[in-house]
Amino acid sequence: MLFDTLSIIGVGLIGGSIGLAARRGKLAARVRGVGRTADDIERALALGAIDEGAQSVEDAAWAAGLIVVATPVDQIASAVLLFAPRCRPGTIITDTGSTKAAIVGAVEDRMPPGVHFVGGHPLAGSEKSGVEHSDADLFRDRVTVLTPTARTDAVALDKVSEFWRRFGSRVCIMTPEEHDRGVALTSHLPHLVASALAGMLPDELLELAASGFCDTTRVAAGDPSIWTPILMQNARAVRESFATLRARLDLFQDALENDNAEQVNELLTEGKRRRDALGG
Amino acid sequence: MLFDTLSIIGVGLIGGSIGLAARRGKLAARVRGVGRTADDIERALALGAIDEGAQSVEDAAWAAGLIVVATPVDQIASAVLLFAPRCRPGTIITDTGSTKAAIVGAVEDRMPPGVHFVGGHPLAGSEKSGVEHSDADLFRDRVTVLTPTARTDAVALDKVSEFWRRFGSRVCIMTPEEHDRGVALTSHLPHLVASALAGMLPDELLELAASGFCDTTRVAAGDPSIWTPILMQNARAVRESFATLRARLDLFQDALENDNAEQVNELLTEGKRRRDALGG
Repeated sequence: MLFDTLSIIGVGLIGGSIGLAARRGKLAARVRGVGRTADDIERALALGAIDEGAQSVEDAAWAAGLIVVATPVDQIASAVLLFAPRCRPGTIITDTGSTKAAIVGAVEDRMPPGVHFVGGHPLAGSEKSGVEHSDADLFRDRVTVLTPTARTDAVALDKVSEFWRRFGSRVCIMTPEEHDRGVALTSHLPHLVASALAGMLPDELLELAASGFCDTTRVAAGDPSIWTPILMQNARAVRESFATLRARLDLFQDALENDNAEQVNELLTEGKRRRDALGG
Repeated sequence: MLFDTLSIIGVGLIGGSIGLAARRGKLAARVRGVGRTADDIERALALGAIDEGAQSVEDAAWAAGLIVVATPVDQIASAVLLFAPRCRPGTIITDTGSTKAAIVGAVEDRMPPGVHFVGGHPLAGSEKSGVEHSDADLFRDRVTVLTPTARTDAVALDKVSEFWRRFGSRVCIMTPEEHDRGVALTSHLPHLVASALAGMLPDELLELAASGFCDTTRVAAGDPSIWTPILMQNARAVRESFATLRARLDLFQDALENDNAEQVNELLTEGKRRRDALGG
């Protein structure tokens, strides 16, 4: 047992998967969930993702050793600031948001004495959302980024690291800004490009879309209410990554215009080399 | 039996899959393969993708009722023009190339009397290549495009259509130019964008690449020696599709610069609507 009570704020795909994994791994004596609606809590209970729904915000906060905030990113900081004053000293609060600088910056100066915030982001998910797609193995063999700053409590960081490791996740430590610049390239820009490729396809060409198009655009099926705030919160890094993409697309375009097969081949070979390094 | 002898020129992923499917479905009394090397033929024989390797070009051509050319696109027209003069009258030649206008334009005026060419493209494949990845079900529930022109023999078109239908493929008829403009949007541009996204990722960020990045860039692992000639042959349509993509990326970029969450949400919602229409 790492914690007596684990409270999960937001029991969607990520929060539900944390609940399933924590209950299976016996990481906490009880797992409490806070959802947007009574229906969300009923579904999470029925799926075994939580032991109980919290009766009130006070209840979820006071009892918890660890609070994980797994709401859309635009609601994380406000949730943390709502809960923190109601926490016992020693309570650790972490989150699962896909952006880190805005969230960490908004909350870490405003923690009550003895309540510790550790920014986190498990690099796991799906184009699907909702607790019904939860998976106790969602974090296994995946990377979870934690983004401590000079203000972060070392013991709290260790405990949150151990929490994710117990789910089979590999923990990576970086600054909030390094995280945001990195995921702009690995997640936010690709999401936006996938959405553009899907969005520009006329209906009459759907029948020409085969497995390659389906792969390339799969993330575009993600919930816009989750992805819009991610892109807005990380707008600066996403815009910088845009410039890098455009420069690379220019190289392809120049090569095509100049009938330069050698350069097209070099660009494709470089892309293949890096993609092969990833696997999957 | 649709044909006595089926000859397959190029026994890689596509040619090998055609051989496996044709042998399983008993579409031909024998399936002959022509490969680049004796080793290619040995592997195709060992995998059961062909009954026999052709002893010579003359042998493969003369005996065949149907010749399917499944080489990289830059070798298709020259292969067809090499084989055609050695074919019996009544022989049908088709291909599996991902571009159509250049190939159809290069060969259809130059067929000997009684030898019929029908341009084709099964929208199936994988980032993997080579006969060892062949799959007798590769074409099942997929679309195969055939691109007849005013010069195409109607009986040959019917036979080639039936050939693909027997593999479980749905046959779509369009002009070579419609095909090329369509696959520029559904395949060639997405390939190039996936390659750019993979190619611009610094090695130190590989650990931040999760399942979304893997999906979005999967096709970038495709063989550059197959993809370079595809992009070169369809350069005009690919360049037109570039302009469409840039216009759509501009909308995202403007919305991010103007902190316009509503517009980002609208663009993502449009992308999701079209991606959801696809499934998969």
